[in-house]
Amino acid sequence: MKNEIGNILRLTTFGESHGVAIGGVLDGFPARVKISMERLREQVARRRPGQSALTTQRRESDDVEFLSGIMDGVTLGTPIGFIVRNADQRSADYDELRQVFRPSHADYTYQAKFGIRDHRGGGRASARETVARVVAGALAGQLLEQKGVTVSAYTSQIGDVRLERSYAELDLTAVYDNDVRCPDSALVAPMTEALASARMQHDTLGGIVSCVVSGLPAGVGEPVFGKLQACLASAMMSIPAAKGFDYGLGFDFANRRGSEVVDEFVMRDGKVRTLTNYSGGIQGGISNGEDIVMRVAFKPIATLMREVKTVDLDGNETTLVARGRHDVCAVPRAVPVVEAMAALTVLDAMLEAGF
Amino acid sequence: MKNEIGNILRLTTFGESHGVAIGGVLDGFPARVKISMERLREQVARRRPGQSALTTQRRESDDVEFLSGIMDGVTLGTPIGFIVRNADQRSADYDELRQVFRPSHADYTYQAKFGIRDHRGGGRASARETVARVVAGALAGQLLEQKGVTVSAYTSQIGDVRLERSYAELDLTAVYDNDVRCPDSALVAPMTEALASARMQHDTLGGIVSCVVSGLPAGVGEPVFGKLQACLASAMMSIPAAKGFDYGLGFDFANRRGSEVVDEFVMRDGKVRTLTNYSGGIQGGISNGEDIVMRVAFKPIATLMREVKTVDLDGNETTLVARGRHDVCAVPRAVPVVEAMAALTVLDAMLEAGF
Amino acid sequence: MKNEIGNILRLTTFGESHGVAIGGVLDGFPARVKISMERLREQVARRRPGQSALTTQRRESDDVEFLSGIMDGVTLGTPIGFIVRNADQRSADYDELRQVFRPSHADYTYQAKFGIRDHRGGGRASARETVARVVAGALAGQLLEQKGVTVSAYTSQIGDVRLERSYAELDLTAVYDNDVRCPDSALVAPMTEALASARMQHDTLGGIVSCVVSGLPAGVGEPVFGKLQACLASAMMSIPAAKGFDYGLGFDFANRRGSEVVDEFVMRDGKVRTLTNYSGGIQGGISNGEDIVMRVAFKPIATLMREVKTVDLDGNETTLVARGRHDVCAVPRAVPVVEAMAALTVLDAMLEAGF
Amino acid sequence: MKNEIGNILRLTTFGESHGVAIGGVLDGFPARVKISMERLREQVARRRPGQSALTTQRRESDDVEFLSGIMDGVTLGTPIGFIVRNADQRSADYDELRQVFRPSHADYTYQAKFGIRDHRGGGRASARETVARVVAGALAGQLLEQKGVTVSAYTSQIGDVRLERSYAELDLTAVYDNDVRCPDSALVAPMTEALASARMQHDTLGGIVSCVVSGLPAGVGEPVFGKLQACLASAMMSIPAAKGFDYGLGFDFANRRGSEVVDEFVMRDGKVRTLTNYSGGIQGGISNGEDIVMRVAFKPIATLMREVKTVDLDGNETTLVARGRHDVCAVPRAVPVVEAMAALTVLDAMLEAGF
Repeated sequence: MKNEIGNILRLTTFGESHGVAIGGVLDGFPARVKISMERLREQVARRRPGQSALTTQRRESDDVEFLSGIMDGVTLGTPIGFIVRNADQRSADYDELRQVFRPSHADYTYQAKFGIRDHRGGGRASARETVARVVAGALAGQLLEQKGVTVSAYTSQIGDVRLERSYAELDLTAVYDNDVRCPDSALVAPMTEALASARMQHDTLGGIVSCVVSGLPAGVGEPVFGKLQACLASAMMSIPAAKGFDYGLGFDFANRRGSEVVDEFVMRDGKVRTLTNYSGGIQGGISNGEDIVMRVAFKPIATLMREVKTVDLDGNETTLVARGRHDVCAVPRAVPVVEAMAALTVLDAMLEAGF
Repeated sequence: MKNEIGNILRLTTFGESHGVAIGGVLDGFPARVKISMERLREQVARRRPGQSALTTQRRESDDVEFLSGIMDGVTLGTPIGFIVRNADQRSADYDELRQVFRPSHADYTYQAKFGIRDHRGGGRASARETVARVVAGALAGQLLEQKGVTVSAYTSQIGDVRLERSYAELDLTAVYDNDVRCPDSALVAPMTEALASARMQHDTLGGIVSCVVSGLPAGVGEPVFGKLQACLASAMMSIPAAKGFDYGLGFDFANRRGSEVVDEFVMRDGKVRTLTNYSGGIQGGISNGEDIVMRVAFKPIATLMREVKTVDLDGNETTLVARGRHDVCAVPRAVPVVEAMAALTVLDAMLEAGF
Repeated sequence: MKNEIGNILRLTTFGESHGVAIGGVLDGFPARVKISMERLREQVARRRPGQSALTTQRRESDDVEFLSGIMDGVTLGTPIGFIVRNADQRSADYDELRQVFRPSHADYTYQAKFGIRDHRGGGRASARETVARVVAGALAGQLLEQKGVTVSAYTSQIGDVRLERSYAELDLTAVYDNDVRCPDSALVAPMTEALASARMQHDTLGGIVSCVVSGLPAGVGEPVFGKLQACLASAMMSIPAAKGFDYGLGFDFANRRGSEVVDEFVMRDGKVRTLTNYSGGIQGGISNGEDIVMRVAFKPIATLMREVKTVDLDGNETTLVARGRHDVCAVPRAVPVVEAMAALTVLDAMLEAGF
Repeated sequence: MKNEIGNILRLTTFGESHGVAIGGVLDGFPARVKISMERLREQVARRRPGQSALTTQRRESDDVEFLSGIMDGVTLGTPIGFIVRNADQRSADYDELRQVFRPSHADYTYQAKFGIRDHRGGGRASARETVARVVAGALAGQLLEQKGVTVSAYTSQIGDVRLERSYAELDLTAVYDNDVRCPDSALVAPMTEALASARMQHDTLGGIVSCVVSGLPAGVGEPVFGKLQACLASAMMSIPAAKGFDYGLGFDFANRRGSEVVDEFVMRDGKVRTLTNYSGGIQGGISNGEDIVMRVAFKPIATLMREVKTVDLDGNETTLVARGRHDVCAVPRAVPVVEAMAALTVLDAMLEAGF
C-alpha cells in the first residue's frame, strides 16, 4: 500500500521532486549477492533526462548513494537504503503552480486528498520518483541474471509509429543503442521524427512499452489474488502516465477464437513446453516456463506548451501555459522503469516461490 | 498476497471447485451497515451458470451461508465469514485429468508449483472460486450505494461484436435484463448469435467487460504504489481468463496527441470538474471526482470440444478432447465478477482515505 | 492486522461465540504434507470445555469440518478452510447482557469501537474464537514435527501454586495426562485444590503457561521488527486474558548481572552451542539452535459469581451477578492455545527463513 | 515483518551501525501536521550516548537530516524519509570480531541466517538502529500531543533498585531531568551508585522501563490478532535487549484472585470509567479510556569487560574480552526508545480506528 510494493522483496520509496532527495529502501533482498556498481550506474543513467535532443533538457543529478545493506560490494541480507539527491532545482519555475492546478496532472487530486501539496515539479507525483525504482530494479536485475532470468523492455509504439515485428526476430540487447529505445532499427528514424514533429507543434505523444522476461522457470506466481499477472499489472499501473496493461495476446484475445489461441503442450528437451505462447507465459497466475510477454500503454505527456483551461486553489477559472523543460513522450524514458518494475516483481515472486 | 486482497477491507477466499465448499472471509467491513440478503442473493445468482442457453448447463448450488459478522441483518464490524457448498459434483467427469494437463489451463502450472493438484474441475484455479468474490462484492456494493457510489459492469465486446457507444448514452441499470449482459439492446442479438455459432463449431470466444464507477468523491486512492488504478488492475487481473486492463482511453492513448486528450478543468456546481474524462477519473493514482472508467479483456474459454495436443504427468505426449459442460465465452458471467472486484477495490480505497 | 496473523503462513479467523460457527483459513501452508486427522481431533479436544470438574460445564461441539486445501489427507498448498459449528447455545442466558457491560470484559470496548456488539457469550471477544487457533496450530504442529521441531506448553503457575523445577527435569509429553496440564505430578493436587477452593468462594484465579520449542535450527527469525520474540509476543498477547510475555530469564533478567547470565559459546557435536540458555534460544531476534523458552501470564477469569458494580448502555450505574457456566482459571485450557500460537509463529518464521 | 512495523502508520528502518547512515521512512503520517524540529532534536538527543558518566563514551552524531515529506515545517502526507549519518566510527576496534562471535549477541545468529554479517559494532543488530525509531517516535509523539495523548516512559528498575511507587504519585515530566531517567528523585542516587559499582566490577545490569499512555480515548485497538496489547508487545519486544513485556498488573495477575482485580465500572463526568485500572487500560484488545500502563524488561548489556568463552567462524573454541566503549545498563537510554515505540504503536492504532 501507499509507498511500498512487494511481498518478500519490498521496495519503499520516498521523496518529492524538488525536496532534498529521492530515496528507497529495498528490504528482503537476499544476502551474499555480488553487485556491480558500475553496471548499476549505467542502468540508472538510462532513466536520466537530458540525454538526447528527444528528452527534457533538465539536468538531473542521478548519483546514487548507497547507505546500507551492501558491504564490500556484497549484499548483507539487511535493507538496502539509498538516496539520489535532487540538484538543478529551478523551483522558482514552479511558483505559479502554488495557486493553479495543471490539467491531467495530480495537482488537484493531491490537494483534494491531503489538503496540501508540494507544488514544485509535481512533488511526490513527479516521475522523478521512478529513479528509486530504477535503482532497486537494477539490483533485482543483477540477481535475476545470476539466476538465469533476463528482463528486457523496449519501445513498441510512439504515436502512430508501431513496431509490428515480434521480439523474437529482434535483438533486445540493442534497445539502449538508440534514443527511442526501439530494437527495430528501421523504426528509429520515424519515431524520432514523430517526436520532433510533436515538439515543434508544442504537442506531446503517447505510446507503448513492451517487456519480455526470459528464463523464468515454471512454478513462479501465486494462485488467486497473488497471480503473477496481477502483481505485474499493479507494478506497471503504478508508473506515472501508464494507462493500460496486458500480457500475452492481451486485448487482442477479445476477438480471437479459442481454437486459434490454445497453447498446446509438447515435450521439448525433457520439459513440458508449449507450441505457441499466446498466453504470455502464465497460466492460472503461475509461470509455465515460456517467456513472460507484456505491454504497458502510456498517455501523452500532460504538460503542454499551449494554453489550457484550468482552475485555481480558490475555485476561479483561469488558463495556464506550461513553462520549464519537459519531455514530448514518456515512452523512451519509461523503458528502464518498466524493466525495473518487471525485475522487482519477478524476483519477488521467485523468492516467494522459493527459487 | 496469495488468497487475499485488500488493505483495510480484506477478502480471503478458499475452496476448490469440487471440494466441500467455496468460502470467504471479509475483514474490515464497517459496523452497523444494514445488509439486504434478498438483493445479495440476486446479485450472487447473476454469476451462477446454467441460467440460459448461452452458459454452461452445470447447475451450481450458489446458496450462500453466512457464518459470522452479521447479526439481525446488520454488520458487527467483525469478519464476515460465508460459504457456498459445492453440489452437483460430477467429479468422475474429471478422472481423465488426473494424468493429463489441459492446455491453456492451470493444470500444469499448479503441478509445477505444488507438486500436487486437485484435478477435478480446475480445483483451486476454477472460476467457481469467483462466487466468493461476488458475495463479498455484493456486500461492498451495498455499502457503496449507501455512500452514493454505484459500480456498473457490462459486456462491451464478444468476439467481433463490439459496443461502440459510450456508456453515457446507455442505461446501465438494464445490463442484467439480457443474457449477454450488454446495455445496448441492438447488440444482444448479434452477440447471442456469435455465441451460438461458436458453440456449434465447438469453439469459444473472447471479449471485453467494461466497468464504470460513478459518484466517487475526489481524493480516493493512494500515491505511488497504492494508486487506485494499480489496485484496480491487480484486482481485475486476478480474475480467471483476464488478460488485459486499461482505464480512461487506455491503450487508445498510445496514438493520441496530448493536445487532444487533456482534461481541462472548469468549475461546475462549486466543484472542480473536468470538461472531458479521457483520464478515466484518476490523476496521479487518486480519484478526481469524475467517473472511473475501465475495461478488462478476457481470452476465449480454453476448454475446447476439439482434440488438442498435450502431455501427461509422466511426460508423454498425448491428446485430449474436453468433456463436461462448459461456457463458450467467459464474458457474460464475468460481468458480475468485474463488478464485485471493482466494488471491493473502491470501497477499500474509500475506507483507507477515510470516507 | 485485525483478524489475521502471520506473514508466509497466515491464519484468518472469524466467528462469534453464539453465531453460526467459528472458522479459520490457513493460507500459505506447504503442499504435500500428510495430515493425521485423528491426532488433530485429539489436539482440538484438549481445548474443549466440559472435560473435567475443573472447567466450565458448557458442552461445546468442537467438531471440525475441513472445507478445502486437503485432499485424501494431504495438503494441496491452497488455503485450508475449516469451521466448527456452535452448538449448545443457551443464548437466553445472555439476554441481560444486551444492556449491561461486564466489568473487565470487552463488552464496553467493543461497544465503544463499533457502536454495536454481539452480547451473547462475549461475541467475537469470546475465548471460543481460540478453537480456530487450535485447529490451525495442530496443522502447524504436525508439519513442525515432520521437520523435527516440537512445541510443548504446560501450566507453570495457578494462583500461588508455582512450578519451580526446570522443564528439563520434567516429562513434557505427560502434560495432558492431568486436568491442570502441569508436568510436575507433585503439583497436580495442590493446583486442583486451589481451583476447587476458588470455585467454592465464587472466585477465580490467574496463572502462567510456559512453553518450550525444541529442535529449531539456528537462523530462524527476522532482524529488527520481525524478531522471533516480537512475533511470539504478539501471538501470545493476542490470546484472551493474556497479560504478559517473556522469554529466557525474562523479567528475572532485571536484577541479574551480565556476568551471571552470559550464554558462552562452545562447540558440541560440530555445532556452535551455548553453555547456558538464559537467552531463551534467541539472539538479535534469530534462533540460535537452543530451546526457545517463554512464559505467558494470564489474569483471573473476569466473570465472577459475585455482585460487581457496572453501568448499562444508557449510562446508568447498576450491578451484575454472572450467571451461566464459567471456568475458574483460564490456564489449563490456555495450554493448548499457547501451544498453537507458538506452533503457528515458529512455522511461519521457518517458512520465511526457507526451512 | 523484517524491517518495518505498523499498519496504517508504517516505519521502515535501514542502516548498519558502522555503515554510511541509519535511516527511516515513516509512511502514512497524516498531512498538515506542524512539526517542531527543535523539540524533535531534543527528543532524539535523549537517546544519544555520551551524555553522562553513566553511558558509553562513544560520541555518536545524531544529526537528523529530513529528506522528504515535510515542507516549511508541515507534513505533506507523503513518506517522511530521514537519515542520521554514522560518524566517529572506530571500526578498527572491531577487527577482531570478524572472526569471533560475541556471546549473548547476534553475531552468530546473523551469520547462521545470512552467511555473512557486518561485524562492526553489531552491524544491523546494533542498538544504534533505534535512533531511527526515536526520530519517527518523536514525530508520532508530536501528533499524539495535538490529539491530547501523552506517552511517558521511565526507568522503574535498575539492577535491584526498584521503583515501588505508582506513576500516579510521580511527576513524569521530570523523567529526563536526571541521567537514570527515574521520576522518583529518591532513587536517582541509588541507581547511579548501582551503575557505577557494576562498571567498577566490569559488569553490567538489567532493569525495567515502564510506560504510561494517557488521554487515549476508548475504542482504539483491533479485535483478535490486532489487539492493542499484541501490537505494543511486538513493538517493545523488537527493541534490542528487551526480554519481557506486560501491561496492567501483568505477571502479578498470576497469583491474584479475580475478586481482587476486577475493574468495576462507574460513570464519571458522563463517561464510562473504571474504579481501578488493574487491566492497564485495555479490554479485549481495545482501549477503555483509562491509562495504558506497561513494562518492558531488559537484560544486562551482554558486552562484558571480562574474558568469556566463545567460538570463531571456523568452529574453534576461543575466548574474548570486550574492548571499546559500552553502556553498563541499557535502561536509561532505552527509555526514549520505549517511548518512541509506544507512540508509534498508539498513533497507528488511533489512525486505524479513525481518530
